[in-house]
Amino acid sequence: MIYWDNNATTAVDPEVLEAMLPYLRESYFNPSASYGPAKAVRRAMQHAREQVAALVGAEPDEITFTSGGTEATNTALSCLTHVLTLATEHPATLRTARGEAAAVLSNGQADILAWKELLPGHDGASFAWANHETGVIQPVRTLAHAAHEAGARVHVDLVQAAGKVPVDLHAYEIEFASLSAHKLHGPKGVGALYIRRGTEFSKPYMTGGDQEDLRRAGTENVPGIIGFGKAAELALAAAGQYAALAALRERFVQALRAGGAEVVENGGTAPRLPHVLNMRVPGVSAESLMLLLEPAGLICSGGSACTSARPHASHVLRAMGLGDKEARESLRFSLSRHATAAEADEAAALFLRALHKVRSVQSASTGPVIVYR
Amino acid sequence: MIYWDNNATTAVDPEVLEAMLPYLRESYFNPSASYGPAKAVRRAMQHAREQVAALVGAEPDEITFTSGGTEATNTALSCLTHVLTLATEHPATLRTARGEAAAVLSNGQADILAWKELLPGHDGASFAWANHETGVIQPVRTLAHAAHEAGARVHVDLVQAAGKVPVDLHAYEIEFASLSAHKLHGPKGVGALYIRRGTEFSKPYMTGGDQEDLRRAGTENVPGIIGFGKAAELALAAAGQYAALAALRERFVQALRAGGAEVVENGGTAPRLPHVLNMRVPGVSAESLMLLLEPAGLICSGGSACTSARPHASHVLRAMGLGDKEARESLRFSLSRHATAAEADEAAALFLRALHKVRSVQSASTGPVIVYR
Repeated sequence: MIYWDNNATTAVDPEVLEAMLPYLRESYFNPSASYGPAKAVRRAMQHAREQVAALVGAEPDEITFTSGGTEATNTALSCLTHVLTLATEHPATLRTARGEAAAVLSNGQADILAWKELLPGHDGASFAWANHETGVIQPVRTLAHAAHEAGARVHVDLVQAAGKVPVDLHAYEIEFASLSAHKLHGPKGVGALYIRRGTEFSKPYMTGGDQEDLRRAGTENVPGIIGFGKAAELALAAAGQYAALAALRERFVQALRAGGAEVVENGGTAPRLPHVLNMRVPGVSAESLMLLLEPAGLICSGGSACTSARPHASHVLRAMGLGDKEARESLRFSLSRHATAAEADEAAALFLRALHKVRSVQSASTGPVIVYR
Repeated sequence: MIYWDNNATTAVDPEVLEAMLPYLRESYFNPSASYGPAKAVRRAMQHAREQVAALVGAEPDEITFTSGGTEATNTALSCLTHVLTLATEHPATLRTARGEAAAVLSNGQADILAWKELLPGHDGASFAWANHETGVIQPVRTLAHAAHEAGARVHVDLVQAAGKVPVDLHAYEIEFASLSAHKLHGPKGVGALYIRRGTEFSKPYMTGGDQEDLRRAGTENVPGIIGFGKAAELALAAAGQYAALAALRERFVQALRAGGAEVVENGGTAPRLPHVLNMRVPGVSAESLMLLLEPAGLICSGGSACTSARPHASHVLRAMGLGDKEARESLRFSLSRHATAAEADEAAALFLRALHKVRSVQSASTGPVIVYR
């Protein structure tokens, strides 16, 4: 099976699991307790904090562990009153922020003029460093600078970007950032909120015990945190592997085109995460292709996993100007850092076979393939 | 080492870890995705939901998975405006509820008259089925009934009680309840919120993706949820083991008394969780005893782990009428379901040795032992 849905979630790296196991076995102590074995757990968590901080150019005391990216985003946005977002944001941002959503250009990048026009009246601004569906990378410095100029604090959703492209939060003076472990070969159920030193952090989102320097209550997910730290360390070491994925993506697209597929890349003219390809073949529904690709052994996505239980045309692609039909033709492929040229070639062959099958059915009938479930 | 701090956290049961491992290895798929392997993960989560529901007499669709007990409590209390609590509640409740805190009797149980008097003006009432420091069990039916009579909805903190004593949420018509996996030999980082069928649940606490039937956004902690399910199943099967711990606790106390310790049990006249003993030896500080007990191989607690990083006299014991000095003399022992008579005897021997040592130092000087750190 070729798993090319790494933006939905990734396999836990065996080294990550290895690092976690002692904390699922003998080192089970509550890190808030006062005895020696508990203090050892606390020290291990601190090491993980250093590992996560290093991934994004932060200091360890700027990292607060959470249950995931969604909690981190909910926490950051709870510190702000009116938050300007982009129309292409993840639901964790769009459904949480109270404020307007600025338009994007057809390549998926923010419309800077719209962004600047809408900023007044907002005390916060939130956008994803890289989009979850298209991988399109925003002009972070420009958006953050404009927000700061307008007196707004900035939250950046790093869930998809962290560990895939270089991120330096200090350079852009960003106040808040959300991270998730399971998007970078760490475990599910753990993430982090970056809070820049000196940023006012009025109250924790989750109140209760004294954990996380009083910034996040609740007994810490110790094995998850240890795994997150290891995953961050591995991602930092694998930066070169990710950079090389852009060439594999191009190889895949070229193979499809050579095989007769008129591939249109969504966001293809914008800077993108190297491992993400959002594309369509005009006239061919994504759903039909996926129904054939899965049994053939190629796993991809027709949209964000977070909303794919109730299929609808992607709000991300619609915001980029695609029609409903075009959005429903679009597929997301998200490679892992272990992808190879052979894998890309095999994926292309599987895709072309599926495409020809869909087309042969379509040409034999009067309309597009109708899928009964 | 004798680990008698199971109210702080428990060791993950090897069977629980065994159940989790496939979801930390090959079954890593995002349960919201549409392909077959992801659907299999979704089915496994549903099985875990059934296991957790069975532990507390609930239906699976009444269980929403969270990152832990604290999140469950924060979520429930966010649905209520003015919440009456008890003065002995866990900080997750006391620091989250906006409302008054009713007094308790000297045995740790609620002062029913005070509870009834304070109820008017509150639309919610929240109390722990069993207290985290003393194990004292509340008159759940009476408190819930009074709250319902006054038009308040009821949230019960089941974090310490679930899996230790029989719990039937339907019988008492309780609207909300919080559960935590790591208190019953499950993993850290996962819990659940019980929401009674038909209870108005205005909005999720965490907003974002469509997970958990739109009641809790964020990619699910799948391995944690699977582990929680297994832990709930094992706890239900081990109900008899827990019931037997009351006799071991009594054996331990009797051995201490036989050895010359004037043990005073905090909450000793109230119904208690069978595995919890909160006690003091008048004139002997808990801190001195713990400093000797830990290296000797007996792990216990001087209070709740959640606040023990900043030692202060327990608010629970103070609410029961103990003075500051008495509270600081108090130790919490919380046995695991695997405790044995031999373990209890050894623990008693270790305790008596530590007690005699503290007393010999005290009698040789002019005052109590002063601990330098």
